[in-house]
Amino acid sequence: MLAQSLKLGLIGAGRIGNLHAGHLTVRVPSADVIMVADVYEDAASKCAERYAIPSFTRDYREVLAQTDIQAVVICSSTASHARIIEEAAQAGKHIFCEKPIALDLASIDRALAAVERAGVKLQIGFNRRFDANYRRVRQAVAEGEIGRPHLLHIISYDPAPPPLEYIRVSGGLFLDMTIHDFDMARFLIGGEVDGVFAMAGVMVDPAIGTADDVDTAQVMLQFSNGVLGMISNSRQAVYGYDQRVELLGSAGAISIGNAYPNTAIISDSHSTRRDLPLHFFIERYTESFLSEMTAFVDAILCNVPVPVTGHDGRIPVVMALAAEKSLVERRLVRLSEIA
Amino acid sequence: MLAQSLKLGLIGAGRIGNLHAGHLTVRVPSADVIMVADVYEDAASKCAERYAIPSFTRDYREVLAQTDIQAVVICSSTASHARIIEEAAQAGKHIFCEKPIALDLASIDRALAAVERAGVKLQIGFNRRFDANYRRVRQAVAEGEIGRPHLLHIISYDPAPPPLEYIRVSGGLFLDMTIHDFDMARFLIGGEVDGVFAMAGVMVDPAIGTADDVDTAQVMLQFSNGVLGMISNSRQAVYGYDQRVELLGSAGAISIGNAYPNTAIISDSHSTRRDLPLHFFIERYTESFLSEMTAFVDAILCNVPVPVTGHDGRIPVVMALAAEKSLVERRLVRLSEIA
Amino acid sequence: MLAQSLKLGLIGAGRIGNLHAGHLTVRVPSADVIMVADVYEDAASKCAERYAIPSFTRDYREVLAQTDIQAVVICSSTASHARIIEEAAQAGKHIFCEKPIALDLASIDRALAAVERAGVKLQIGFNRRFDANYRRVRQAVAEGEIGRPHLLHIISYDPAPPPLEYIRVSGGLFLDMTIHDFDMARFLIGGEVDGVFAMAGVMVDPAIGTADDVDTAQVMLQFSNGVLGMISNSRQAVYGYDQRVELLGSAGAISIGNAYPNTAIISDSHSTRRDLPLHFFIERYTESFLSEMTAFVDAILCNVPVPVTGHDGRIPVVMALAAEKSLVERRLVRLSEIA
Amino acid sequence: MLAQSLKLGLIGAGRIGNLHAGHLTVRVPSADVIMVADVYEDAASKCAERYAIPSFTRDYREVLAQTDIQAVVICSSTASHARIIEEAAQAGKHIFCEKPIALDLASIDRALAAVERAGVKLQIGFNRRFDANYRRVRQAVAEGEIGRPHLLHIISYDPAPPPLEYIRVSGGLFLDMTIHDFDMARFLIGGEVDGVFAMAGVMVDPAIGTADDVDTAQVMLQFSNGVLGMISNSRQAVYGYDQRVELLGSAGAISIGNAYPNTAIISDSHSTRRDLPLHFFIERYTESFLSEMTAFVDAILCNVPVPVTGHDGRIPVVMALAAEKSLVERRLVRLSEIA
Repeated sequence: MLAQSLKLGLIGAGRIGNLHAGHLTVRVPSADVIMVADVYEDAASKCAERYAIPSFTRDYREVLAQTDIQAVVICSSTASHARIIEEAAQAGKHIFCEKPIALDLASIDRALAAVERAGVKLQIGFNRRFDANYRRVRQAVAEGEIGRPHLLHIISYDPAPPPLEYIRVSGGLFLDMTIHDFDMARFLIGGEVDGVFAMAGVMVDPAIGTADDVDTAQVMLQFSNGVLGMISNSRQAVYGYDQRVELLGSAGAISIGNAYPNTAIISDSHSTRRDLPLHFFIERYTESFLSEMTAFVDAILCNVPVPVTGHDGRIPVVMALAAEKSLVERRLVRLSEIA
Repeated sequence: MLAQSLKLGLIGAGRIGNLHAGHLTVRVPSADVIMVADVYEDAASKCAERYAIPSFTRDYREVLAQTDIQAVVICSSTASHARIIEEAAQAGKHIFCEKPIALDLASIDRALAAVERAGVKLQIGFNRRFDANYRRVRQAVAEGEIGRPHLLHIISYDPAPPPLEYIRVSGGLFLDMTIHDFDMARFLIGGEVDGVFAMAGVMVDPAIGTADDVDTAQVMLQFSNGVLGMISNSRQAVYGYDQRVELLGSAGAISIGNAYPNTAIISDSHSTRRDLPLHFFIERYTESFLSEMTAFVDAILCNVPVPVTGHDGRIPVVMALAAEKSLVERRLVRLSEIA
Repeated sequence: MLAQSLKLGLIGAGRIGNLHAGHLTVRVPSADVIMVADVYEDAASKCAERYAIPSFTRDYREVLAQTDIQAVVICSSTASHARIIEEAAQAGKHIFCEKPIALDLASIDRALAAVERAGVKLQIGFNRRFDANYRRVRQAVAEGEIGRPHLLHIISYDPAPPPLEYIRVSGGLFLDMTIHDFDMARFLIGGEVDGVFAMAGVMVDPAIGTADDVDTAQVMLQFSNGVLGMISNSRQAVYGYDQRVELLGSAGAISIGNAYPNTAIISDSHSTRRDLPLHFFIERYTESFLSEMTAFVDAILCNVPVPVTGHDGRIPVVMALAAEKSLVERRLVRLSEIA
Repeated sequence: MLAQSLKLGLIGAGRIGNLHAGHLTVRVPSADVIMVADVYEDAASKCAERYAIPSFTRDYREVLAQTDIQAVVICSSTASHARIIEEAAQAGKHIFCEKPIALDLASIDRALAAVERAGVKLQIGFNRRFDANYRRVRQAVAEGEIGRPHLLHIISYDPAPPPLEYIRVSGGLFLDMTIHDFDMARFLIGGEVDGVFAMAGVMVDPAIGTADDVDTAQVMLQFSNGVLGMISNSRQAVYGYDQRVELLGSAGAISIGNAYPNTAIISDSHSTRRDLPLHFFIERYTESFLSEMTAFVDAILCNVPVPVTGHDGRIPVVMALAAEKSLVERRLVRLSEIA
């Protein structure tokens, strides 16, 4: 335990909540999680026991009421994010919130206004920005290692679709999955997108179509600095999580590949092969989840700006809404048409 | 010299004409090139001398008039392709013609009609179809090795822009450069494209913009079987010719990489590196140029269908015209709107 | 803090001692380090402060005297290993000891006898056995994935030689550096070596030669099951830590590559390159150091056998002594000639 | 046909003879093969027909008697090489001879003496020197790209053992297979070997053991400039022809990999894989066989030294004999002990 440590409350003890709990209690020595809340009391209780968190509750308002808690980590369902941000801000807590802030801009804007009024810090959970591979691409752009960027391609495929019940409340592919890639595009180029064009289809599972969603998509991006971007998304790459970037610039190109559990190459009489990539985000982004949480705790303890702001959480939602509109109208949609 | 050999005339003795001359005279034993024509008599003469071709002329009509010539290889300027095809067909010659057939559909349709009337064979020079890498992707699709195709991405960057005088008569990026990728998309998927959406810019050289062309582009493709495709083009990848494909399917994915002069990996105190890829199409596609010519000669000698038909030459022109329209109108353009 | 935790004392607070301290205090929740000793009191004090270890001392015997300490981790200088093992065993402590146990067999045998008499557990610090890459090779051999092993090649190069003062007391290249590879050879093949042949030279730094050591070596291994092995060692690969294995078997081959800080490939007008591999053992083997310590703690808490025994610590010393003899006599030396 | 062309006779129309015939008649325009000989008249006749060689014979002396033949290409059985070299030299013919010149030094020395007396050119068929990958390694050494060489490792595995009847007359693994690697070691380092140490076994097929040969071997090389080398050989890598080199130097390292039929990477739910490497020497070394023959023809037509001399053919035989002696005596054997 360090002399100076940050007292935190965790709201939401699902898969991602437990992941953050593990990092905050074991690997971020300057963090001290003192309460965990979940609407399913059993989930809160199990998380508290597993990570030696002193208290738990089914009501997140109890967390907000704890005067010694300085910051909250919001991992509840998306529908509750904006409301809890507002209340946490009013309670004077610093806030880490998983993406997306909300599925509609009105809720987002209300939440961001509350944060601004309260003068608390808000960091959004775009964890991929902390991954060593993406950071290396960002560094190449920032340092001019490949000259001025021309063409960006983000590949982002999940290993398998989530359950249908999840898809029904997810907000749709663009707001649930592409949103990470929208953020990544802005982060890597260091600039804003003016317009998007999207095409999509139901190729993986017809049931996703009956749930009024798509499972495969391509989105083209026009950046205000002239760069052209492209995002490829699929809910299912049977070989595992496929997360790559290619960027062509005036003086070269940079690309990043997948992460693998080992470097072994096996040759037999059939093929030369390697084991599949790390299966999904838990395995692939372990270190980036840890880094984003360390950065959040440090931003508060050292009173420096958070690396991913509320504004950074809002723009990808605008992009997703523009992509949805483009999909219907089969034309380039300017972000200015949305908000 | 084999018992049975095909007597050919070569029309056009520029860079690509000389390349074909070399293959036909040295590496296709069943071919016998007996005359070469070029409007620059000096070019025709030098080609004849270099490859021991018995006669040369500045007038391609002399080639067509030679009764013992069974087939012609047209490597003249694009503007002359359609006219020479018509005349060669009327003269009863089988025809190999470089792409594109023409920059307008009326000329193409007239040429194809002449070919059909004459009952001669016509093969279009989409040489990349014969490359071992692209063939491997096609095989994977045809054999279902990766299931049903979902997302196709074709990367196609030249090492450096051609001279401005070439660009001015080239027909523009889509008709000059992307046309290879339009053909490749149809070849790999084994299906037709319904609609295209294109975005482009002048990023490499402002002079290309003043010549009313673009140098960087992304084109999205909607196939009639639902596949989504994407083509990325640049007139300049400073590291050399970048020619790759990625294809995601329901049961896996396949990707192909660039070709290199050697497999050496050098590590020093700065980096782990390899030599640049083969610089341009002459080096990269040597074997595929040879294979397409062998296939053409065999198709005639064995009287079997040519592997790349006049129809295959026409469709990519339609796609290019649709891409141009999309670029202006910022919307998805159906091929049916063009022709 | 888990209900059941293991109370440990750390002996030696140099580079490797601090590394283990970090893992034991932060990342092994079931471990509880309560005292650290170092002959340099300042080093002990700093380590205690950094990792919140309650007490420190300059005399390791104080650690052995603590009755609530159940196990010790010995990271002191090699010359003291065997003596401390003996005393720790007599004090009834379980023991983790860095390699090598000693530079002579008499000391080793005395230490192992003391361990056996006391009935305590002893684990030797061959951390590479816990690395995901080497484990994957071991798994391939164990499961017959490449058939019966035929030819093994271990590449093991350091990024730069250690200081000369270290080399003078290191016991020489074979006992200091190759010893890891001798252990790896036994681990991967799952069998014993009968004979060794070694050649070596001073190629990196003449000063190493004046210190009576070599800096570059090749050692051939004859396994009792017929496998032929080869170890390549260098004190200096300027591009960084080079740690690889190749294994040919009757049904295939497996090889493992280096670990890199990221997967980025950068192409510019000079080359296609990537960043250098992880620089040295601290970076490359972080996770395997953690895993070996977790395994040690678990072996005691669950009373199961340790994964790397005192016998496993003794054999590589025999192999190193045989290699030294072979180097002088320029012939294959049987291990049975040594001990 | 060029103004100046070289008239050649081919002696031996087996697999390698036909390969050279194909290159000389189709792809080396300045070569003119006018007679082919083989003790099996049928083989000579078929080769003549296939490559349009005007005449054939069962007696190589007829080839030597043709006054217009300027050079011979000897691809007959190893046992006849030295004798035919002698006779061809006496007949004033320039000579290309497949490796090895002979299995004993007396025959080799007699042949080389005859060549010297006659003042004709003699080139030995170490084709791998002409491969783009090995040349790249040689270039790196020659230009100091990796500093001074320290450790060389040559991997050379065949896809499958040859027939037993071939093995019985092959001279054994070292003279038949390792001989290429002995030559490669000298070529890459640009220096001579002083001593060798060899270990070997019968791991692939017991029948090879009953034929008094080994099928798996490791040979250590001590160069006179201090470099340490290692050759790994196997008669069987089930995944295909494995031909690689690694070289560590004072300023870096270089390694070369296998050659593949395509660059495709296929990922499915089991693995990420690629097709097997090019299967055997015919496929892998096509271009180097062509280059060596072009170099031979050019050396005569332009009267410049051949790139692989009779001396280069003799030394690897000495090395093989030393390796055999080392295998028996289990010690380092100096080449000076052999000859």
